[in-house]
Amino acid sequence: MMEMRKPIPVAEAISRVMEHVQPLRAESISLERSMGRILAEPIVARHSVPPFDRSPYDGFAFRAEDSEGASGDNRVPFTVIGEIGAGYVGEQPVGPYEAYRIMTGASIPEGADAVVMFEQTVETSEGFTIRKPFKTGENISYKGEDAAEGETLIESGTLIHAGTIALLATFGYAEVKVYRQPVVGVLSTGTELLDVSDALIPGKIRNSNGPMVKAQLARLGVPFQSYGTTSDDLDACTEVIKRALEETDALITTGGVSVGDYDHLPAIYERLGAKVLFNKVAMRPGSVTTVAVLRDKFLFGLSGNPSACFTGFELFARPALLSMMGSTSPYLPHLKARLAEDFTKPNPFTRFVRAVWQMTEIGVTAAPAGFNKSNAVSSIARGNCLIVLPSGTRGYSKGDEVDLLLIGAEQGVEEWVL
Amino acid sequence: MMEMRKPIPVAEAISRVMEHVQPLRAESISLERSMGRILAEPIVARHSVPPFDRSPYDGFAFRAEDSEGASGDNRVPFTVIGEIGAGYVGEQPVGPYEAYRIMTGASIPEGADAVVMFEQTVETSEGFTIRKPFKTGENISYKGEDAAEGETLIESGTLIHAGTIALLATFGYAEVKVYRQPVVGVLSTGTELLDVSDALIPGKIRNSNGPMVKAQLARLGVPFQSYGTTSDDLDACTEVIKRALEETDALITTGGVSVGDYDHLPAIYERLGAKVLFNKVAMRPGSVTTVAVLRDKFLFGLSGNPSACFTGFELFARPALLSMMGSTSPYLPHLKARLAEDFTKPNPFTRFVRAVWQMTEIGVTAAPAGFNKSNAVSSIARGNCLIVLPSGTRGYSKGDEVDLLLIGAEQGVEEWVL
Repeated sequence: MMEMRKPIPVAEAISRVMEHVQPLRAESISLERSMGRILAEPIVARHSVPPFDRSPYDGFAFRAEDSEGASGDNRVPFTVIGEIGAGYVGEQPVGPYEAYRIMTGASIPEGADAVVMFEQTVETSEGFTIRKPFKTGENISYKGEDAAEGETLIESGTLIHAGTIALLATFGYAEVKVYRQPVVGVLSTGTELLDVSDALIPGKIRNSNGPMVKAQLARLGVPFQSYGTTSDDLDACTEVIKRALEETDALITTGGVSVGDYDHLPAIYERLGAKVLFNKVAMRPGSVTTVAVLRDKFLFGLSGNPSACFTGFELFARPALLSMMGSTSPYLPHLKARLAEDFTKPNPFTRFVRAVWQMTEIGVTAAPAGFNKSNAVSSIARGNCLIVLPSGTRGYSKGDEVDLLLIGAEQGVEEWVL
Repeated sequence: MMEMRKPIPVAEAISRVMEHVQPLRAESISLERSMGRILAEPIVARHSVPPFDRSPYDGFAFRAEDSEGASGDNRVPFTVIGEIGAGYVGEQPVGPYEAYRIMTGASIPEGADAVVMFEQTVETSEGFTIRKPFKTGENISYKGEDAAEGETLIESGTLIHAGTIALLATFGYAEVKVYRQPVVGVLSTGTELLDVSDALIPGKIRNSNGPMVKAQLARLGVPFQSYGTTSDDLDACTEVIKRALEETDALITTGGVSVGDYDHLPAIYERLGAKVLFNKVAMRPGSVTTVAVLRDKFLFGLSGNPSACFTGFELFARPALLSMMGSTSPYLPHLKARLAEDFTKPNPFTRFVRAVWQMTEIGVTAAPAGFNKSNAVSSIARGNCLIVLPSGTRGYSKGDEVDLLLIGAEQGVEEWVL
């Protein structure tokens, strides 16, 4: 007797997964190793920025009051009493009609309260002259004007990217508190699977899902442990999965989640006592995608079909893993676009189509990477987004507005909006 | 006497850089290490896909001709002579009114030319019955229908991402030919620079550009060699740069490219005999960004201002390095958006503003991460794009359409469009 599964909407499936996320602990790592991790503490301005009054230009620092009455006909002369390069401080206070030659980023000397750029001066033997009056504070970057000491600048839960690293370095975060990363087990199931270096033999194909999922994890910076491939043997497969669950924080399997005679994952979930969150999603490809939890560990049962496997990872495993890592923006970014080709086939399930989006003269367009059957294989290697086509009784036409989910973006978004 | 520099447009500066790119050699690496690299060979279908006629469903494989005349009132019975799981082949040919039980992905047995899904059959003691006639080829995925042997599926010069890895694995590319990566030297110049772990002292700031540039390189998968920081000493700085040029394929320096007394990079380029491609770009921040070449090596002289440094890297170093690595899509992706805030200050130079883009009900909007002065520091750690505001005599208003360059996207685009 065939098991009948009830499909649930994609949004509902995502929500069931996200409800079960258990955040991992925090740990301290060095700044150099923090790229791609998620902040487990806010970035706080540990000192004012700038940390001292400084010059935004190469020029001369002087007392504004001395410039009173200066004009083209009445150039006011100043005597230069020294020079302050960036990294140095002036040795003596600036007196009347005195000035320091000062470089961009250097500390304003005591007594001075204005800076004139080189370009606005005329050199003299003792110094320079100026032709206009300056206001107190003119061309001075005051201590604390960019950030006040103690101010929270970036929230916990934010991805650490290149710009974040600049900010952490500014405030001396040699060590930074980040969330731990899950170690994810990857197991490809299927008697038909050969290794990438094996020669093809009749009835078999090479395992492409395992290497792909590992690359999808690597893109998130998530470490993985490979459990290779297993044939469709219930006992052997159960043993590998038991071991993987002991050794890892979450397990991704590919294949074995459908209703064929050798689709053993449903039986394995039952044997393990895992709670199945869903085993049928109203989506194509990947309707058989299954997610189960055993204690605090996820078992992502992705389809053996490579496109379905890819999509299942991006829709379910990705936000769950990012959320375990503390990210407050775990979802794929969303964009709207005009469909660049007809897609005439109506679908009872929401369809996710690998596609290329680009900015064109008529706005953002998205061209499917593989509507034509001849592109079915290569489409997995093309495209920078997924077109989302809701289920319905009619197809879609070129020019229709459709939703896109962007693939491979460094930063995600806070909400699942579709 | 002040040196007068002539600013050139951003597009012209990019074009001067790209004209000097010398592509690196190719090398072979293992598939597991290929994520993020650029293909130096096309991906060719080394065999047909599917590699054999196969079943797209769990069901029974039989001879279509035997189903002739089947109907609800005249169910045609079949005898099951065996089972074929994925990875196996049928042992004997299928005769009249015989069938194999067959699983998704399994090889169609000799003699059979149609597949019926389990759901469309009624079980009997010897096998099953069907209630409709089948056509030859119904529910069979024919050998080669997705890709024909010898077909070029993905071009050389393409980024290897997770989907690409699936395709490479499918065709047994255990080794893949990719372009070498440049080793890039990173040197921060400035007497004012402290290390991230140093306590602040008067007049000094911590070096944030060095760690940031290394993170920007890491995002591209480019290995780097750090030369730390040097003070603004002409001879010492020249020596470090000479050594770096011997040890690396390209050098990124930060600071020292302006016209201050201690901005020594112009003098160093001259000493080395490097050809300066430009030393003034009509952009803010980063107008002093300088790029020089010495033989086949780039010297990227980025500004010491962190925002300018970041932007200079993304606009000039990034496409040059990706192009050295053979990428045919080295430019930041482009998107148009509505400005979410007024930007009233007119600019004589094109302005690049760190911002956050998002899809909203009124379309894509972009909100600057730091128009307000209080956000000046944190803006470097915020944002997923750069707003590009062309130079002009007026500011911009909320709702104006502006160009964006996306930051942190895995895949770039082929053309610089702005």
